[in-house]
Amino acid sequence: MAATKAKSATTRAIKTSKVGRVSKSTRSGKAAKPKLHKPRVSASLLEDVAIASRVLARHQVLDAFGHVSARSDRNPDHFVMTRSLAPELATPADMMEFDSDSEAVGGDTRKPFVERYIHGEIYRTRPEVMAIVHSHAMSVIPFGITGAALRPVYHMGSFLHSGAPVWDIRDKGGDTDMLVSNRYLGRALADTLGRCACALMRGHGFVAVGNSIAEATFRAIYTDGNARIQLQAESLGGPINFLSDAEGRLTTAGNQNAMERPWNLWKQQAKRKT
Amino acid sequence: MAATKAKSATTRAIKTSKVGRVSKSTRSGKAAKPKLHKPRVSASLLEDVAIASRVLARHQVLDAFGHVSARSDRNPDHFVMTRSLAPELATPADMMEFDSDSEAVGGDTRKPFVERYIHGEIYRTRPEVMAIVHSHAMSVIPFGITGAALRPVYHMGSFLHSGAPVWDIRDKGGDTDMLVSNRYLGRALADTLGRCACALMRGHGFVAVGNSIAEATFRAIYTDGNARIQLQAESLGGPINFLSDAEGRLTTAGNQNAMERPWNLWKQQAKRKT
Amino acid sequence: MAATKAKSATTRAIKTSKVGRVSKSTRSGKAAKPKLHKPRVSASLLEDVAIASRVLARHQVLDAFGHVSARSDRNPDHFVMTRSLAPELATPADMMEFDSDSEAVGGDTRKPFVERYIHGEIYRTRPEVMAIVHSHAMSVIPFGITGAALRPVYHMGSFLHSGAPVWDIRDKGGDTDMLVSNRYLGRALADTLGRCACALMRGHGFVAVGNSIAEATFRAIYTDGNARIQLQAESLGGPINFLSDAEGRLTTAGNQNAMERPWNLWKQQAKRKT
Amino acid sequence: MAATKAKSATTRAIKTSKVGRVSKSTRSGKAAKPKLHKPRVSASLLEDVAIASRVLARHQVLDAFGHVSARSDRNPDHFVMTRSLAPELATPADMMEFDSDSEAVGGDTRKPFVERYIHGEIYRTRPEVMAIVHSHAMSVIPFGITGAALRPVYHMGSFLHSGAPVWDIRDKGGDTDMLVSNRYLGRALADTLGRCACALMRGHGFVAVGNSIAEATFRAIYTDGNARIQLQAESLGGPINFLSDAEGRLTTAGNQNAMERPWNLWKQQAKRKT
Repeated sequence: MAATKAKSATTRAIKTSKVGRVSKSTRSGKAAKPKLHKPRVSASLLEDVAIASRVLARHQVLDAFGHVSARSDRNPDHFVMTRSLAPELATPADMMEFDSDSEAVGGDTRKPFVERYIHGEIYRTRPEVMAIVHSHAMSVIPFGITGAALRPVYHMGSFLHSGAPVWDIRDKGGDTDMLVSNRYLGRALADTLGRCACALMRGHGFVAVGNSIAEATFRAIYTDGNARIQLQAESLGGPINFLSDAEGRLTTAGNQNAMERPWNLWKQQAKRKT
Repeated sequence: MAATKAKSATTRAIKTSKVGRVSKSTRSGKAAKPKLHKPRVSASLLEDVAIASRVLARHQVLDAFGHVSARSDRNPDHFVMTRSLAPELATPADMMEFDSDSEAVGGDTRKPFVERYIHGEIYRTRPEVMAIVHSHAMSVIPFGITGAALRPVYHMGSFLHSGAPVWDIRDKGGDTDMLVSNRYLGRALADTLGRCACALMRGHGFVAVGNSIAEATFRAIYTDGNARIQLQAESLGGPINFLSDAEGRLTTAGNQNAMERPWNLWKQQAKRKT
Repeated sequence: MAATKAKSATTRAIKTSKVGRVSKSTRSGKAAKPKLHKPRVSASLLEDVAIASRVLARHQVLDAFGHVSARSDRNPDHFVMTRSLAPELATPADMMEFDSDSEAVGGDTRKPFVERYIHGEIYRTRPEVMAIVHSHAMSVIPFGITGAALRPVYHMGSFLHSGAPVWDIRDKGGDTDMLVSNRYLGRALADTLGRCACALMRGHGFVAVGNSIAEATFRAIYTDGNARIQLQAESLGGPINFLSDAEGRLTTAGNQNAMERPWNLWKQQAKRKT
Repeated sequence: MAATKAKSATTRAIKTSKVGRVSKSTRSGKAAKPKLHKPRVSASLLEDVAIASRVLARHQVLDAFGHVSARSDRNPDHFVMTRSLAPELATPADMMEFDSDSEAVGGDTRKPFVERYIHGEIYRTRPEVMAIVHSHAMSVIPFGITGAALRPVYHMGSFLHSGAPVWDIRDKGGDTDMLVSNRYLGRALADTLGRCACALMRGHGFVAVGNSIAEATFRAIYTDGNARIQLQAESLGGPINFLSDAEGRLTTAGNQNAMERPWNLWKQQAKRKT
C-alpha cells in the first residue's frame, strides 16, 4: 500500500540523521503497537480541540506544525492535545491527556509533541487560561526578529493592547534547536507571556491564550490578521494610529460576546472542507 | 450532536466575560425560541442580500464579521439585513427588517447586528443609497490608521474620486469598544461619509454604498482591490499617477453600465461554492 | 427563478445611471432575442479562446473583467472573442466574430466588449500576432502609475526585454472613462505597443500579445508573475540585476519551445475546476 | 477530441519559432510513438517522486515548471525524474531513469527536462544527497537578483545557516537562454552549491537538496517560506535577528526527526486534491 511504501523515504531521513531526539514511541515504532489512553474529559472538549486544529490549518495559522491544547474540564491540572500530528489531520481519537508536568498520563505511549511544555507551563501560571495555540504563522515572525512591536491596528486585534512581548529562547537556553523541549524553557516562556494574551517567540512563532477554545482560536487568527495589516501599514511610512489602551481593553471585553459568530462559521467550514 | 457539544466552549467564553453587552435574544437563548418577522420586501431583495453576503465572503472582503444591507423596496424608511451571523452563512430566512431608527420591526426578537446603526443612519441621510456594505478588509485598514489617503489607482476604483474620508470614532465617542453601537455614532459616521461612495473607519474597517446591491458589492470589492494596488504602488516610492477627478467622475458613470457582468459571475460563483 | 429575480438589482443600477453608453443589444434586452452568428473559424480555435479565458481567470490575471481574443484561422483580417461576459464563464458558444474595424460580423446583435478595439487595432498593426489578452491584474497596475519600469527579473518574464511601454489614454483622449472604446484610441495603444510583447495601460491594466493562444496566455500570466517578483525585489532596496537584453532575446526564443507544458497543465486545470 | 484540437495552438507556437532547441522526441512527435524504459528502482521511489512533485505544485513552490528528482535506490550513479511534464501531472508512469551524465537510459525516447543536468551534476558531487528540487518560487527570486542574502529567519528555514549562495549563469555561460542545458553549466552550479542545502540561481530560481525526498521537499517549501518571511521582515527596516550558526546547525539536525509529520500530511493532501 502507498502509505507503507512512502514510509521508506522518511525512514531513510531518520536513519541518516546523526543528531537529535527520537521519542520512545518512534524508536519502538514498528515493533510494539503504542498503548493508548482515552483522556478523561468531556467528548465535546476533544471534538473542539480537533475542530480548532483544523480551523487554524484552514486559516494557514498552522501548517504541518503547531498545536492547540485545552485545559481538562474534569481535572484543572491536566490538559489535552493531539499526539504529534499535523493539525489538519486531528481527530478526537488522536487526543492525549497530560499532567501538570506535561507528561502523558494513563500510560499512553503514543509520540507526543516535543513542545507540550509550552502548554503545561502556561496552564500552571495562568489558572484562568482554558486553551492555548502555538503557531508559526508567517506574518507574525517578522515582529519577533526586528525592533517593530506588534500592536493593535484594529478592533479584531484589540487583545494585543496588553502587549505581545518577544521571548528569546537564547536568553535562558543559549544555542538550542529552538524548541521548547522541557519544563525549564516552558516556564521561561510563560514568565515572558505574563498576563498577556499573546507572546512572540524569536525565530520561531507565537503563542496565544484564551479563556475558551473559541477565544484562543480567535486570538491566534487575529494575531496573524493584525500582523498582516501592520506589515502593510508600516510599509506606508509615518506613524501608525494604534488603538489606545482604553480602546484595547474595552474592545477586548466586547469581543468576548462575539465569539459565537466566528466559531460557528469556522466549525461549519472545518466540517465541510476537511 | 456536534453543534450542541461545541456550544459548551462558547458558552464558557461568554460566562467568564466580565464586561459587555449580551442581547436579549442571547440571554434568553435556550429558554425561549426567538420570535421571527418575515421582512415585507420582495423575495428577490432578500435573496440578493444573502448572495451579496456570500459573494463578499468569497472575495475575503468579509470574514466572520461585517455585513450587507439593502433599503426596503416596499418602504423606503426601512432596510433589511441578516440577524447577527457570519456573512458566508447568510440565507433569505436570516433577514430581519429594521425601521429608520435601526430597530427591528414586527416584534422580531432574533439577535441583530450591534452595528446596524451604520446602515440606518446612512439610509436616513442618503436617500439615493439603496445598499450598504460594512467590511474589515485587511488591505483597507492601513489607509485609516496612517496619513496615506486612499485614492483611485485604476478605473475599477474610480468611485474613490469623491474621496474616502477617515472617520475616527474617538472624535465623537472618546474611548469605546470601537463599535458603532447607537444612532449617535451612526450619524457621526454618516456625516463623515457625506456624499462619498466610501468612508474608512479608523482601526476598524470601511463602509461602501451604492444605488443597488450590485453596485455596493462592486464598490466594496474594488475598495479592497484599489487598496491592494495602492499599497504596492506606494512601496515603489515616488509620486503615484492617480485618476484625475474628471476621469473619476466619467469612469464611475461608465462603470454603472458594467454592473451586470461581475454580478452575474459572482452570483454563479456564490451558488456554486457555498 | 433566482436568475430572474436577481436581475432587478442590476436593472435598478442601470436605470438610475445618468451617464454612459448602453449597447443596442442591452437596450432592446428583454424585448428582442439577440441574433447570433457562429464565427467561421475552426472549432478548436473557439475552444482554445474559451479555455484561455478560464485559465486566466483561475490564475487571477482576469477577474470579472478583461478578455482574450484570437485571430481567425480562416480570415486573417478577422478575430474572435466572447460577447461581453466574465471570462470564467466563457464557452465556445459565446464567441463572436469581428472584422478589421472591430465590428461584429454576420449580423450578430449580442452585446460585445466595449474595448474590442484594443484587439482589432493590434491585429491590424501586428500581422504576426495571433492572440491577445487584456487584463487588470493587480500587481501590474503599479508599474503603469509610478516611475518604476517593468523589466524582466527572471526567465519566465524574459519577453519583457523588449520593454513594457506605458500608454496613457489621457495623451490622446484627454479625460475619459478610461476605456478604449473606439478605433482611434485602439490605434494609439497599438502604436505605443509597437513591436513589444506587452504594454501597460495607465490606471487600467495591460495588454499582452503572442503568436499563439498558448503564448499570449503564457505572457499574460508571467507579466503578472514578473510584476509580483519585481515588486518584492524593489522592496529590498538597491539595484536589481535584470536579465540582459541578449538573455531576454535568447530566453524568449527558448521559451517558445516550452509552451506545450504549461498549456497542457492549464487546460487540464480549467476543465477540472470550472 | 478536445486534447487533439487544443494541440493546434501549441503546434503553431512551435512552428513559428525561429530559434531554439526541439528535442528529438518532440520532432518525431506524431510520427513515432516514443520508446519507454521503466526505471530500475523501487516502486515506492517512483511514487514518492510523483507525490513530491504534486505536493510542491500544491504549495506553489512549483508551477507548470520546475522538477523533483531522486537518486536511484538500486544504482547510486543513476537518478529518476519525470519526462518533461508539469509537476502537478506527475505519475510513476512518467518517470525516466538517467545515468551519471544525465542521459536517459534503456533507450527511453520520451522528451526529458532540458535542465536534468542540474540534478546529475549535484548527485555526482554530493554523494549523500538523495533528492533534489528545482523551483522558480516567486518569493525566492528577489534574493538572487539583489544584494540581500537569504538567511534563516526561523527554525523551519534553519538549513539556510550554511548559506544560500547565488549562482549566476552569466559567470560561466555568458549570455544564454538562462537554462542549465548541459553538464558544464550543471557542474558550475553544483560547485557554487558546495556543501549547502540550497543555492539561488540569478534570474531563474533555486535548487534545494536533501538526504531523502521528504527532506528535499521540506527544504524547498521552507526556502520559500523563509523568503516570504524575510521579505516582510526587511520591509520593517532595521537589522534582523537571524538564527545563529549554532542554532542553525542544531535546529537542522533536530528537524530531521520531524520529517514524518509534514510528509504524511502532504501526501494525504496530494492524494486528496489532485
